[in-house]
Amino acid sequence: TGQAAWMATEKVNAELFTLTYGAIVRQVLHDYEDCVEDVNKKLDSMGFDIGCRLVEDFLAKTSTTRCGDFKETAEVVAKVGLRLFLGIGTRVGEWNPEGTECVITLDTNPLADFVELPEKYRDLSFSQMLCGVIRGALEMVSVRVTCEWARDALRGGDGYAIRLL
Amino acid sequence: TGQAAWMATEKVNAELFTLTYGAIVRQVLHDYEDCVEDVNKKLDSMGFDIGCRLVEDFLAKTSTTRCGDFKETAEVVAKVGLRLFLGIGTRVGEWNPEGTECVITLDTNPLADFVELPEKYRDLSFSQMLCGVIRGALEMVSVRVTCEWARDALRGGDGYAIRLL
Repeated sequence: TGQAAWMATEKVNAELFTLTYGAIVRQVLHDYEDCVEDVNKKLDSMGFDIGCRLVEDFLAKTSTTRCGDFKETAEVVAKVGLRLFLGIGTRVGEWNPEGTECVITLDTNPLADFVELPEKYRDLSFSQMLCGVIRGALEMVSVRVTCEWARDALRGGDGYAIRLL
Repeated sequence: TGQAAWMATEKVNAELFTLTYGAIVRQVLHDYEDCVEDVNKKLDSMGFDIGCRLVEDFLAKTSTTRCGDFKETAEVVAKVGLRLFLGIGTRVGEWNPEGTECVITLDTNPLADFVELPEKYRDLSFSQMLCGVIRGALEMVSVRVTCEWARDALRGGDGYAIRLL
């Protein structure tokens, strides 16, 4: 249903989105005088607010029902949510034995396309807003998660992957 | 060619874009302590920077050649540029007799969808970034324009329209 909802949804150009998102990050870096730790928190919290609002649209467009367990939740976030909002493919894996923690690998990351960071921002979690969006959206359906970047190409990682637990 | 380029381009969900853009506006309002005049200028200048970078993508994807006159420029901005980046339809009209000034009416405005502004922001040009994008993109191809909202539904206007001169 992720792909069907994606086809039916209004869209804008991804590069415009990337540059607009980059403008936010620059502005927040400026506001917090390059204190990367604060910037990461702020981006996460901006994402949280967006996620709280996006979830309504998500529920309306995908007729998703309550997930039975955390595995199902992770699959819906990855296969329906990320597809519907970013138009990207994902893989869910790296489950811990308890089934309480996994990693969602993104085929691409439209928030950070073509972005390069200077050395002084090496601890910046540039795309942190996305983790906040997921956290906010799930919070609205009473699922409390921790969401963080497991791999981030901008910080030397191999591609982009989000840890959900 | 606007529609063909739009079909071929990477996209993201328009509501995610709208909410992300809204987060910028809120942040800038906060930074400038609700001084709406400064906020309008800042949004315009952020847009200018984005336009300067988007124009490369635009030229690559649309194989647009140099415009013969201002009428052609306005048509390309409206029919190719706004279609490619926002996926929207537009009409160009309200030309002055000299052919140096026109109005581009937008079918919809993805920057401001579902946005409502409190009374204290009635002079806020919420979508001003878009005018900056157009100005920046044209500046990069040596066309200097003034670009402003002619009609803005958020400020009581009948729909959304951009004046280009």
